[in-house]
Amino acid sequence: MRIRHVKGSEEYVAGSPLVIQKPEDFRGRYKEAVFGTEAPIRLEIGMGMGTFIRELSHREPDISFIGFELNTTVLYKALRRYEAELADEGREASEAAGNLRFIRSDARFLQDYFDEGEIDRIYLNFSDPWPKDKNANKRLTSPIFLEHYKHILRDGGLIEFKTDNRGLFDYSVETFPAAGFELKAVSYDLHHDAELSKGNIMTEYEAKFSAKGNPICKLIAVYQKNG
Amino acid sequence: MRIRHVKGSEEYVAGSPLVIQKPEDFRGRYKEAVFGTEAPIRLEIGMGMGTFIRELSHREPDISFIGFELNTTVLYKALRRYEAELADEGREASEAAGNLRFIRSDARFLQDYFDEGEIDRIYLNFSDPWPKDKNANKRLTSPIFLEHYKHILRDGGLIEFKTDNRGLFDYSVETFPAAGFELKAVSYDLHHDAELSKGNIMTEYEAKFSAKGNPICKLIAVYQKNG
Repeated sequence: MRIRHVKGSEEYVAGSPLVIQKPEDFRGRYKEAVFGTEAPIRLEIGMGMGTFIRELSHREPDISFIGFELNTTVLYKALRRYEAELADEGREASEAAGNLRFIRSDARFLQDYFDEGEIDRIYLNFSDPWPKDKNANKRLTSPIFLEHYKHILRDGGLIEFKTDNRGLFDYSVETFPAAGFELKAVSYDLHHDAELSKGNIMTEYEAKFSAKGNPICKLIAVYQKNG
Repeated sequence: MRIRHVKGSEEYVAGSPLVIQKPEDFRGRYKEAVFGTEAPIRLEIGMGMGTFIRELSHREPDISFIGFELNTTVLYKALRRYEAELADEGREASEAAGNLRFIRSDARFLQDYFDEGEIDRIYLNFSDPWPKDKNANKRLTSPIFLEHYKHILRDGGLIEFKTDNRGLFDYSVETFPAAGFELKAVSYDLHHDAELSKGNIMTEYEAKFSAKGNPICKLIAVYQKNG
């Protein structure tokens, strides 16, 4: 997706109380210092406009969520949408009392931001497929990233991954088990899978591709440290 | 593979001391009554000429193996090959003292033959793909068969499955997790997978297809009863 730069978006993101500005300062203490609750923390990495994680954070008020996004303009748009939702409910972003926060950074620094086992679950939705072999290490399901996820996930923690890109999916069906995850569920056609489609939150991208008749693939991987 | 009937093969199979003639009589007591050892028992289902399981039974003398084959003529040929190997070692089939036996039957009766948890591991090699949807239930990785395997496998027991048929493989990558297995390893190109190719035993079929440049797919699934 080509993003048109929005003037002032850097300043907006840098001043938002919804954005965790220096995540390295909270390493190992997000529960008390950011959310003020012992609720499990779940991440979406590469959340885009945030449709998925905003909806999920509504549905699951007893879970804390963090949306990770590298692109400042994209994060800015996600913030504006979330603030509009909060305004509909009569709440202000400045209260920052909800169960959803954001981090603007690169997933390769996850271990600097989160302590071992601090994260309950990770969501990866429609990640960039980086189809060329020379860019394989940039895929969010490449062995390098999976090592980061293993470090920050709790024992028994899950990763839920969906994509319409079959090449990326097949690649990931290999990389997860090779990295020590076990695949608990795999579907090459999520929307026609009675079990996995329960409660599925459609992203805008997902709705668009699915409407064209393209199947969506999904896998759920579990990390057992002593597995 | 079209099989030319061999005259006298039924009688030969029915009289062989290497063939467990009435497997239902040994249900729950194969270790003492058939093998005379507490060694774990592993099955290959649809073993064909038996190249794989004969080689494996040599490599792993402390494991007991049973080759399952429905077609009498195919089993006959496997027996003759195994006996030739035993003869090379100066042993007679009638001693039947080795760690390999055979059953001529249909895998749909597995639960009649084996008690719950009696089997340590199951191998499925180049199973018939049954490509038409109407025949899906005949695939050895269909949900019906996976239920049989779950019943006879021990807690934590494995299924190792390989095939050159990508359609059957993709189908199986979905059916195993859906049935409660977890995928520990997946490769779409076994012979180029440094980890999974270690110790790989090539079947004749595998060597033939691989030589043509076709990749071999492999998965390892684990069954955890309380998973």
